[in-house]
Amino acid sequence: MTTLEHCQQLDQNDPLRSLREQFELPPGLIYLDGNSLGVLPRATAARVAQVVTEEWGQGLIRSWNKAGWFDMPQRLGDRIAGLIGAGPAEVVATDSTSINLYKVLSAALLIGRHEHPTRLRVISERSNFPTDLYIAEGLCNEHGGTLTLLEADELQAALAPESAHDVAVLLLTHVNYRTGAMHDMAALTAAAHRAGVLTVWDLAHSAGALPVDLKGAGADFAVGCGYKYLNGGPGAPAFVWVHPQHAERFWQPLAGWWGHAAPFAFTPDYKPAPGIGRYLCGTQPILSLSALACGLDTFSAAEPMGGMVALRQKSLALSDLFIELVAQRCAGQGLTLVTPLAHAQRGSQVCLARADGAFAIMQALIARGVIGDFRAGDGGRHPDILRFGLTPLYTGFADVWQAVEHLRQVLASGEWQRPEFNRQQAVT
Amino acid sequence: MTTLEHCQQLDQNDPLRSLREQFELPPGLIYLDGNSLGVLPRATAARVAQVVTEEWGQGLIRSWNKAGWFDMPQRLGDRIAGLIGAGPAEVVATDSTSINLYKVLSAALLIGRHEHPTRLRVISERSNFPTDLYIAEGLCNEHGGTLTLLEADELQAALAPESAHDVAVLLLTHVNYRTGAMHDMAALTAAAHRAGVLTVWDLAHSAGALPVDLKGAGADFAVGCGYKYLNGGPGAPAFVWVHPQHAERFWQPLAGWWGHAAPFAFTPDYKPAPGIGRYLCGTQPILSLSALACGLDTFSAAEPMGGMVALRQKSLALSDLFIELVAQRCAGQGLTLVTPLAHAQRGSQVCLARADGAFAIMQALIARGVIGDFRAGDGGRHPDILRFGLTPLYTGFADVWQAVEHLRQVLASGEWQRPEFNRQQAVT
Repeated sequence: MTTLEHCQQLDQNDPLRSLREQFELPPGLIYLDGNSLGVLPRATAARVAQVVTEEWGQGLIRSWNKAGWFDMPQRLGDRIAGLIGAGPAEVVATDSTSINLYKVLSAALLIGRHEHPTRLRVISERSNFPTDLYIAEGLCNEHGGTLTLLEADELQAALAPESAHDVAVLLLTHVNYRTGAMHDMAALTAAAHRAGVLTVWDLAHSAGALPVDLKGAGADFAVGCGYKYLNGGPGAPAFVWVHPQHAERFWQPLAGWWGHAAPFAFTPDYKPAPGIGRYLCGTQPILSLSALACGLDTFSAAEPMGGMVALRQKSLALSDLFIELVAQRCAGQGLTLVTPLAHAQRGSQVCLARADGAFAIMQALIARGVIGDFRAGDGGRHPDILRFGLTPLYTGFADVWQAVEHLRQVLASGEWQRPEFNRQQAVT
Repeated sequence: MTTLEHCQQLDQNDPLRSLREQFELPPGLIYLDGNSLGVLPRATAARVAQVVTEEWGQGLIRSWNKAGWFDMPQRLGDRIAGLIGAGPAEVVATDSTSINLYKVLSAALLIGRHEHPTRLRVISERSNFPTDLYIAEGLCNEHGGTLTLLEADELQAALAPESAHDVAVLLLTHVNYRTGAMHDMAALTAAAHRAGVLTVWDLAHSAGALPVDLKGAGADFAVGCGYKYLNGGPGAPAFVWVHPQHAERFWQPLAGWWGHAAPFAFTPDYKPAPGIGRYLCGTQPILSLSALACGLDTFSAAEPMGGMVALRQKSLALSDLFIELVAQRCAGQGLTLVTPLAHAQRGSQVCLARADGAFAIMQALIARGVIGDFRAGDGGRHPDILRFGLTPLYTGFADVWQAVEHLRQVLASGEWQRPEFNRQQAVT
């Protein structure tokens, strides 16, 4: 049996241990939900206060230039690029993931339709993050296309050239939000390209969680989230990447003044900015963007320690430990591991299915100060899930031990069956 | 001649004078650019700090429910509704003005096309805010429609039923950003409806600046800005209103999870929320939304003093004074008043055209601590403009006197011709 003392020793020997000091972790809380909302970096409060009182309060309109507000989407985009295998001037931080997805999926559909007018189908995964499917559904309705939803293990066959002749776009989230399973981005992109299909990747659960190599995989478009692993704060602006070979092929439909080639000329005709700049639309929320900058700073400190490669190594060690401890301590309690055991197929979270009681079990854990989250199943192939996010910047090995011990106690004692844990309510 | 002492007396007698104390006005600055970026309310810094350190830092994911983050677009929307003649549950604060315009213009075009398949034209004003025209241009390209740009005095004729048989939507900004001229919303909406045309109003320069009566005018759709007269901070989220009779007629195309009828059910199919809720898309920037809430609070203090009606009265008195002082003190300096003299046609800004030197004159004023802004002309019917925003919540009569005195000195001395004021650079 793996002991708490052993886990404490792992923390002592962890070369990334000091990174945790960058964050304001509420005392007594074991927070395994950084894949939903990242923890507050220590530097953020002072920086946001400075933006409010000095840059806005004193600088006022002059801060658009003097404080660099106007270029912030590009500046932050360049920093995100370094985490996802993209180059400089290829990423902008802006808008929400859903809206950025609309932009790139529109562009991809236009490119597809332009080159192959009979390609009118979008393929995605049935358990993809729902908002991605809603955006795709809406765009397909607009463009007269169809959205086909498949299981993960059906994707390769659907991308066989003989099956995919009418497919324009493969739209996938790199790491599945429900299961923590990671797609092989390079292999699926190669298969898509062999069939003449463009790829759109949602990096919501991978950017900042593990190394992503968009250019290496030959991907076409990507979007991602600023408030999960990037620690940008609630609802922080998202990001969008377009491969340079596609960036200037079409307008994207949300063509606003921040994406204009000459935004201050105020001409009545739209002329898109060169490169990724045309994926900007309207004025961005500067306070929230400033907090995102502080979130990105927390990765800079990891650079001399090996950056995303070292963070990935720790993430896998944390999830291995979680899986091992659940097997050791919660056997016979009806939990099924949903997250793949193979490292190459695992994101940075561990998900456990249970036929019943998953909601109440998570409520009982939260009451004990262990925060993960619950995701409802569909009553069929996709069961109810307990989800535990492992964020190597600030999660320790002893945290994992304590979390599983609480889980063991909640299950063994039947505590989760108390009525107060069974009141269903909105959770995010 | 109107004296400074007289203006100081006007400030003394101003029943709204105490409202200025709600704001952090930089000492020594005369800020006449609240129509571009509103001033920082005193309460904002502490509130944003609380959201960062307590709600995010301590509450973490639990704050989506406990701190009311999730309902913030609706809660703020209800408060904005009170400023624009809309009802409860008809407005949401979300995204940017450009993106909200895309939503409502898409919906309006769909309604138009559904009812009259031959209506494929959008009419707007050539000097409408350019980003509105870009969004319209993009949507017309997508939908096979055309965008017709007219001068303000050509609109009524274009809306004659015999001319407008192929027009789907009239898209106008209520108060023109360049000239400060205000359209007659009720009359133009009535003319549009007689011709079977739907109306989309951009309230960027009127919400919070003057009473707006969307329902009274029978308008169909509206959007507006959070960071100008609403004092929400740089890039604050915008708002969107849809007349209840249209709200549920179509999806809008940016169909994300926040606009789903059951956002936490995570179902793969989109089912739009009832009412205005379906105009939400992705997760919103909570820090920036929290600052917008503080901006809206500055209007609450005005309620017992007569609210928007009293603020409008003061705004007109300020712009009357500005116009009168320019006539008295800057005669013969080549300035032409562009803003209408008639109150019913005037927004809350005064704009002066000059054949040459307008950019340098504004730079010289800014160097003196008088902040307005410059808007370039088109070399034709629309000249270069000096723009002065008058924000009755915090602008005083003596401010106006001092601003015009600086303008007089800059012109009379030729100070504006100094080389340092003639370097063109980006201005917002």
